[in-house]
Amino acid sequence: MSSFPSSFFQALTEALGADAVQTGQAIAPRHHSDWSGAPPVQPLALVRPRSTAEVAAVLRLAHAQGVPVVPQGGLTGLAGAAVPHAQGIALSLERMNAIESVDAAAATLTVQAGATLQAVQEAAGAQGLLFGVDLGARGSCQIGGNLSTNAGGNGVLQFGMMREQCLGLEVVLADGTVLPMLRPMLKNNTGYDLKQLFIGAEGTLGVITRAVLRLHPAPAAKVTALVALADFEAALTLLGRLQQRFAGSVAAFELMWRDFVEASLKWQSLREPFDQPHAFVALVDVAGSDEAGLRAALEELLGEAMEAGLAQDAVIAQSQAQAGTLWKIREATAELPTHMHPPINFDVSLPLADIGRFAAQCRATFDARWPGHTAVFFGHVGDGNLHLSVDGATVDHDEAGVERIVYDKVAQFQGSVSAEHGIGTHKKPYLGASRTQEELAAMRAIKAALDPKGLMNPGKVLG
Amino acid sequence: MSSFPSSFFQALTEALGADAVQTGQAIAPRHHSDWSGAPPVQPLALVRPRSTAEVAAVLRLAHAQGVPVVPQGGLTGLAGAAVPHAQGIALSLERMNAIESVDAAAATLTVQAGATLQAVQEAAGAQGLLFGVDLGARGSCQIGGNLSTNAGGNGVLQFGMMREQCLGLEVVLADGTVLPMLRPMLKNNTGYDLKQLFIGAEGTLGVITRAVLRLHPAPAAKVTALVALADFEAALTLLGRLQQRFAGSVAAFELMWRDFVEASLKWQSLREPFDQPHAFVALVDVAGSDEAGLRAALEELLGEAMEAGLAQDAVIAQSQAQAGTLWKIREATAELPTHMHPPINFDVSLPLADIGRFAAQCRATFDARWPGHTAVFFGHVGDGNLHLSVDGATVDHDEAGVERIVYDKVAQFQGSVSAEHGIGTHKKPYLGASRTQEELAAMRAIKAALDPKGLMNPGKVLG
Repeated sequence: MSSFPSSFFQALTEALGADAVQTGQAIAPRHHSDWSGAPPVQPLALVRPRSTAEVAAVLRLAHAQGVPVVPQGGLTGLAGAAVPHAQGIALSLERMNAIESVDAAAATLTVQAGATLQAVQEAAGAQGLLFGVDLGARGSCQIGGNLSTNAGGNGVLQFGMMREQCLGLEVVLADGTVLPMLRPMLKNNTGYDLKQLFIGAEGTLGVITRAVLRLHPAPAAKVTALVALADFEAALTLLGRLQQRFAGSVAAFELMWRDFVEASLKWQSLREPFDQPHAFVALVDVAGSDEAGLRAALEELLGEAMEAGLAQDAVIAQSQAQAGTLWKIREATAELPTHMHPPINFDVSLPLADIGRFAAQCRATFDARWPGHTAVFFGHVGDGNLHLSVDGATVDHDEAGVERIVYDKVAQFQGSVSAEHGIGTHKKPYLGASRTQEELAAMRAIKAALDPKGLMNPGKVLG
Repeated sequence: MSSFPSSFFQALTEALGADAVQTGQAIAPRHHSDWSGAPPVQPLALVRPRSTAEVAAVLRLAHAQGVPVVPQGGLTGLAGAAVPHAQGIALSLERMNAIESVDAAAATLTVQAGATLQAVQEAAGAQGLLFGVDLGARGSCQIGGNLSTNAGGNGVLQFGMMREQCLGLEVVLADGTVLPMLRPMLKNNTGYDLKQLFIGAEGTLGVITRAVLRLHPAPAAKVTALVALADFEAALTLLGRLQQRFAGSVAAFELMWRDFVEASLKWQSLREPFDQPHAFVALVDVAGSDEAGLRAALEELLGEAMEAGLAQDAVIAQSQAQAGTLWKIREATAELPTHMHPPINFDVSLPLADIGRFAAQCRATFDARWPGHTAVFFGHVGDGNLHLSVDGATVDHDEAGVERIVYDKVAQFQGSVSAEHGIGTHKKPYLGASRTQEELAAMRAIKAALDPKGLMNPGKVLG
């Protein structure tokens, strides 16, 4: 089963204890893959260290022996970065799941990499504070994975991505060297900001073991509205007015194209939110301390937008339950795997002004090649982030063909092939659409400098 | 005068034209140093390229010849990073000063590195937008230098430092390779976020030539208050309440210790702002769209704080002129060189909760060693950033002794020896107080990977 020399296996067991090292059939199958749908791979061993010192011991041993190491968090990634290496060890952070401290006055939280996003959110909430990142996998995904993939999600418009939440990071390098960059400060101009390299590196430069995260005051009130719009330009104008009026407090601006709204209503048996269908529907959240004032200001802004012909129609939720009903339309994404056969999903980023044209051109190209195809367009448009899902059954299951169309257009519009999900193995073939050869060469030089033997998550991202 | 081979000098002149290459006495003395007070150095040549292609040509030639290159922006740095190398060339970006475009809908601005901060602020303002970084040297400092030092300043509490304003960056590496990472997107998870390395690297990894910057809606209103406080803990509590009530809109929270207020009033012949002296005074700005509402909310919050004994006294400016008068107390920093002989200045960062203790311990240590010394404490305390200035004449001109006291204490409190000014040459001896040997080794490995001949701003930061 194992091609390790027995001395290596013995040294691992001695360093971590027998219960922290598993091999072969003893490794739970959930460690063989992630949510990307990539084919499962059984690693030679799964190790589950309990501390940074144990992570360092594992990496020192693997480095001496030349064994590849694949870090694993909650295994909810969509790009395949956590899929094991058949000749390597999978290093799970799941036992390092402590919230070590919350400093309410400074609004910071120190956490081990294996804590779930939800645990961090709850620890912040217990102090009247908010953690700025939220996403659907919150109960399973782990902070180390969120950092390693620079996760986005629902809060980016207001608070930025994981990178913006991270004040400090403890990292173990490929050779076992620990970089304890955990000083909880907003400002620290002392040489290169090394932690930035590991955020979004998908485990290819080292293992993230602990982090100091920034928290925000939890808003006392949030008001939700659904706005009907005739075209993409109107959506952009509305977004600009919202950000002007509610500077720093626009918590969501999710845009749904008609195809998405129609599919969502059908799949979930919901009623049309407006008297008639509209080309675009925007879901808006604004946050603040005074609910009545917030609602009045939003009513005024949307009233003006309707009078000016900018908005076609609008509804403001009068309760949290009503807000939930409006959000339900957007949450149809959970239904995609049930209703598309299978969905071919994209997570692209584009210059804000080009998103409307990009979507229209993608649709026209699909239409020409696969008349009657099904595709839905939606996304965190306030962040420049468009998601689209194409029903594989309606495009001859030509996933590569659809990807080529989308990513060629991303390259043409100077966009990104991955806004928030990362590269892993899944998007590696298309990295060149968003990065020049010179940029990739610089990344490889950095990889070689920090991981000269190429043992950290080999074959992922740069490959 | 020059130790270049004449062929190198000729090649430079051929590539850039004679008017872009100066040597010896023809180099204006202002290019010999920066605002750090470091001793001036005359470089072998000053080159002033007009384009990224010309910057690349200079670096290719210097790389082939093994000539050190020191990039220069507005020369307002306080750490000495832009001081020339006697055997190298100074590369000034001053001719690359175009604001290339402003995209008001997307709130982004594309700019060449040599544009001044003020030019960027004005270009944003012309579109009803705001650039999030502001600092005293705005009319002279250049965007490339602001990025290379990850500048901070007055807007950090609300908008973050330069790093947070930068969506894209064009960089020329030591060998002349251009990395055109200018895609203007908020979300772009495609491999390592290379631009983060160059931000704050003080020109030691390459030359920043262009950037895409993020803009914000310009707030329609801003209200300023001055609040008297009995102790540091009260200041922290007040800050927390402000951030809770005005989430995302607290634009300034500048704390001044009594020593600073007293010196400021004396130096500028200003009146005491309150009926009696207080241990601490906080200057607060809140921004928003509705001035009357903002003022009413701030009045309510400060009224409650006074009733609860949290604040000792408070005054809210009723006009922009009154706000200017309140701000004048904080702006005494411009008077430091006149009234201290000379000032020994610090820019340190500490965990928020420790700033009060840190300041008290520094003062006690100074007092024990130099009874009757003069020192003033102030800073962007909302960011964890404390400035302090000690009058050299009152501490036997023992600059090294004062530095040792302050930086030892920074190390003890796990703080940063440079919050926003950078390392340059000035703080190099103290880098070890904020960074471990392992962290410095990782930085050197990255430097070697991107600049194997060590020609980019040699001797700065890592040395």
